[in-house]
Amino acid sequence: MNFSEIINEIYSEVKCGETDGHVASYIPELLNVNPDKFGIALLTVDGNEFCCGDAEEKFSIQSISKVFALSIAFSLLGEKIWERMGVEPSGTSFNSIMQLEYEKGKPRNPFINAGALVVADILVSNLKNPKEEFLEFVKEISGNISISFNHKIAQSEKEFGFRNAALINMMKSYGNIKNDIELILDFYFFLCSIEMTCKELAQSFLPYANLSKPFNYKNFPLTKSQIKRINALMISCGFYDESGEFAFKVGLPGKSGVGGGIVAIHPNIYSVAVWSPRINSKGNSVFGMKTLEMLTTKTEISIF
Amino acid sequence: MNFSEIINEIYSEVKCGETDGHVASYIPELLNVNPDKFGIALLTVDGNEFCCGDAEEKFSIQSISKVFALSIAFSLLGEKIWERMGVEPSGTSFNSIMQLEYEKGKPRNPFINAGALVVADILVSNLKNPKEEFLEFVKEISGNISISFNHKIAQSEKEFGFRNAALINMMKSYGNIKNDIELILDFYFFLCSIEMTCKELAQSFLPYANLSKPFNYKNFPLTKSQIKRINALMISCGFYDESGEFAFKVGLPGKSGVGGGIVAIHPNIYSVAVWSPRINSKGNSVFGMKTLEMLTTKTEISIF
Amino acid sequence: MNFSEIINEIYSEVKCGETDGHVASYIPELLNVNPDKFGIALLTVDGNEFCCGDAEEKFSIQSISKVFALSIAFSLLGEKIWERMGVEPSGTSFNSIMQLEYEKGKPRNPFINAGALVVADILVSNLKNPKEEFLEFVKEISGNISISFNHKIAQSEKEFGFRNAALINMMKSYGNIKNDIELILDFYFFLCSIEMTCKELAQSFLPYANLSKPFNYKNFPLTKSQIKRINALMISCGFYDESGEFAFKVGLPGKSGVGGGIVAIHPNIYSVAVWSPRINSKGNSVFGMKTLEMLTTKTEISIF
Amino acid sequence: MNFSEIINEIYSEVKCGETDGHVASYIPELLNVNPDKFGIALLTVDGNEFCCGDAEEKFSIQSISKVFALSIAFSLLGEKIWERMGVEPSGTSFNSIMQLEYEKGKPRNPFINAGALVVADILVSNLKNPKEEFLEFVKEISGNISISFNHKIAQSEKEFGFRNAALINMMKSYGNIKNDIELILDFYFFLCSIEMTCKELAQSFLPYANLSKPFNYKNFPLTKSQIKRINALMISCGFYDESGEFAFKVGLPGKSGVGGGIVAIHPNIYSVAVWSPRINSKGNSVFGMKTLEMLTTKTEISIF
Repeated sequence: MNFSEIINEIYSEVKCGETDGHVASYIPELLNVNPDKFGIALLTVDGNEFCCGDAEEKFSIQSISKVFALSIAFSLLGEKIWERMGVEPSGTSFNSIMQLEYEKGKPRNPFINAGALVVADILVSNLKNPKEEFLEFVKEISGNISISFNHKIAQSEKEFGFRNAALINMMKSYGNIKNDIELILDFYFFLCSIEMTCKELAQSFLPYANLSKPFNYKNFPLTKSQIKRINALMISCGFYDESGEFAFKVGLPGKSGVGGGIVAIHPNIYSVAVWSPRINSKGNSVFGMKTLEMLTTKTEISIF
Repeated sequence: MNFSEIINEIYSEVKCGETDGHVASYIPELLNVNPDKFGIALLTVDGNEFCCGDAEEKFSIQSISKVFALSIAFSLLGEKIWERMGVEPSGTSFNSIMQLEYEKGKPRNPFINAGALVVADILVSNLKNPKEEFLEFVKEISGNISISFNHKIAQSEKEFGFRNAALINMMKSYGNIKNDIELILDFYFFLCSIEMTCKELAQSFLPYANLSKPFNYKNFPLTKSQIKRINALMISCGFYDESGEFAFKVGLPGKSGVGGGIVAIHPNIYSVAVWSPRINSKGNSVFGMKTLEMLTTKTEISIF
Repeated sequence: MNFSEIINEIYSEVKCGETDGHVASYIPELLNVNPDKFGIALLTVDGNEFCCGDAEEKFSIQSISKVFALSIAFSLLGEKIWERMGVEPSGTSFNSIMQLEYEKGKPRNPFINAGALVVADILVSNLKNPKEEFLEFVKEISGNISISFNHKIAQSEKEFGFRNAALINMMKSYGNIKNDIELILDFYFFLCSIEMTCKELAQSFLPYANLSKPFNYKNFPLTKSQIKRINALMISCGFYDESGEFAFKVGLPGKSGVGGGIVAIHPNIYSVAVWSPRINSKGNSVFGMKTLEMLTTKTEISIF
Repeated sequence: MNFSEIINEIYSEVKCGETDGHVASYIPELLNVNPDKFGIALLTVDGNEFCCGDAEEKFSIQSISKVFALSIAFSLLGEKIWERMGVEPSGTSFNSIMQLEYEKGKPRNPFINAGALVVADILVSNLKNPKEEFLEFVKEISGNISISFNHKIAQSEKEFGFRNAALINMMKSYGNIKNDIELILDFYFFLCSIEMTCKELAQSFLPYANLSKPFNYKNFPLTKSQIKRINALMISCGFYDESGEFAFKVGLPGKSGVGGGIVAIHPNIYSVAVWSPRINSKGNSVFGMKTLEMLTTKTEISIF
């Protein structure tokens, strides 16, 4: 397969196509991003690399870091982690908080905000210096020591994070949050504010695709079976209320963030990261979705 | 890989393990099935066949026939079919009817009952003799002309099918049902009452795994991309409120029925059918889930 | 108090005020009513009568007949009736069917459709000739033997009654409906199609206001305490999702119908019926609500 | 009517009857109250007073103070207050937070916690010294300058108030909370911790019954029509998910608190306060409900 050609073709087609969606506007730092940014990076498990457009520009990976947080927590607790959250998709977002109430404070999966807050609580309980250790993990898995977070974004998220505060208080009322709420929210918003380039992101997800290589970064090892399970979770729950749509049209495990980033992997073949800040009403990058749909169509390989 | 050995090993282990769950009890015909029945059939795309236990005994495939119904409807309408239903998982079952109300009569996917009723409505609109043509399709895809349905079960389902009647009336009130309600319910309960053996079931699903062979049975052709999408839907929505769990633990597209049958496929490798009538509270066969989890664990291959 | 003057004053003011709302459109028979019709009839327990406008023209009383149906059922079963439905308001209508599911087929009160269907089921179980006996009761309580129902409206309601069919099937699935569904729906739609004038309606509700007179029509007696409870239910649940609003602004027990009729009572003082076909988005007559709000404001008497 | 005799009779009957329910246990301060406490105080608008049992012992009035808070806010803002909350009952409590989400942060009424938090927000916005002024109002309306609050209870409520924190954060995310969350919660928990005796409570609610006397305490005047509306709200929404039950069985406007207090009024006749700490699953005093049901039965007067 000629990935280089396919990637370039897709990049041109998508870029020249209709724009749609809007840059995330709930905090000023995201709103000020240039909406026309567009980058693609694809890395194969056999060591090739294909980049296009703004693939080397930093952006806020937002919810994509939930995969890293889950990986560390899963490594620390093993299967016990599922006592505190489920592995099921959440259905329409409109009733997310009701489901939390109905299921007595146990979030449906680790990729909705409620679940990621529980993961953050687990990390705060189990790591000495949560922020430092998390950053170390990300630096090691991405092979890039320059990875850092954006303090302003973390701060802004916190200032406008009333909905997350509602979720965490609800879970605390059911006993599913162990630490101080402010502490977890602070850590959680830090997680959301990590910045990476497409290339770094694709690099960081290569270990989820490359099942032949042991997974162990900063002493957080995962078995092959555990990685497969994280991949399964990405396909079931990685795109909020559009997870089915992504599985249906793209057919790869992946994770999106409201910053406009999407990362996806094809087990044993490649990892790919796309960034374009305009997101649809479900919170997923419009160009990102289009790019990945074209990728599996043109390469004619998906996991199905 | 030695499928024969693995299948036999799993069969013994599961059979000797703890029993759990209960035979479906909402209609007498299902309740009277011997709960200890247990069969496995695995067929590879390269033509091998591995059977164990009661793999050649007929049972009620129930919701598994929703995949056949969708295949025909998808062949007939193409992408237009998604104007009438979604491709997203449904979240907890407790609010399924509310989501139907919230989303104005458009069911979340073709594998929940509401969605399958819309599929039935589509078939009733587009086929001259829906029951006959459906049966012909199933006979051809399974390569077995003896496939038939159980009239008593269809009748019983109808007598106790008030919940399905509630769903279809709700959708009709939103204009998403075109034909007479009684007519569709009759056809729907017919679909649920098809009987097959594990071997026949595995045979019928081989075309969903074998992407190198054209899919065209009784003049209902599907493209490779369409089959992949049906497979994606199976992984997102095939197991009711346990779809995430199945993706997580088994990692294969599949579909279950309350009769205790489960079918799953590994694209390009195999299709597998298991039958054991005891189901858990989510409606999925306990032994079936266990069998398939062990299968991907022992073979060390899943799609992730 | 000079009711005559007050009623005339209100009539003029409301009639000349802004029109708002729309005639119910879900069946053609209701849609074809002249939207400008407007009548008021107030009857005092001490025997006076005040009428205005179209007070002697027949209209479809619709849900108002739920009070009569409940009265008969309450007379027949006594407190046992509350095993089959509650006495609580239903909250927003958007989740009515979900609450039915959550509360296992037991409707929240006898004035939402689900509850009225259970009441209809009770009457079908306990009366020899439900329609005839119901009509006899209404004729006797209204003191008017000419009361009848509109066959066309009953028929139309049935043809478009998919939502009611959804509700009753749901309740049947939980065992809270004893008779054949078609039979109850037929009786229920008959109840909705009773026609009366404002004057007849006010006359029929005088017994709910006049607590000093024994309540016993066609051998369906109610105690004073039972009548008070029906009145309490009217104030809690008589106006769908606007019951609180009506209690708040009007301060009287009452019941509305989508035909544009509203009836209300002031215990020991009067009963009043208003008819104006334009209804608001909650299903209550716009002029009717305004008229009754002005009535308690101008008379300075409400139950609070 | 001989209130003295009736009250004594009820007191004896209820006290000797079956005990049921449990003392509120979510904070230690409430749990430690003697569950056998039982007091009744009834004050007539014409100046008589009837007390029984522990009528002069202080207890935590909890949610009953929501009526005082609403009165002040209503006096300050007039009808504009209803732009920020509704006047409708909330349906089953299980979906309260969902309704808040569905209705974009606007609580259904001022007596559910979400609504009372908005009222608290209004008072914090409009009063210079919210706590002092509130206490002054309560002292004046109860005619008792010794009224105070329990600091320990306020503190405890705060420590365990995660659910209220969830509600207020949710509303803040929709812009329906103007002040700092901590500030409002602090004031809200102060409101909940006011302590009174039955006699003081009955005295404080006499102004809601005595419509012939101008209502104006500490410069917070309300018109007769506004008081009637508060009374209407008490009957629709005063008893959480049992408001319909209370209207149905008791037939008076009233308000309950989880401390076991219930207050009710009969417009133009009397106000009555009961205290017994054992509450039912809906949060209402078991003896309190029984006492008031017997009161309207034995006196044969209710508002219906």
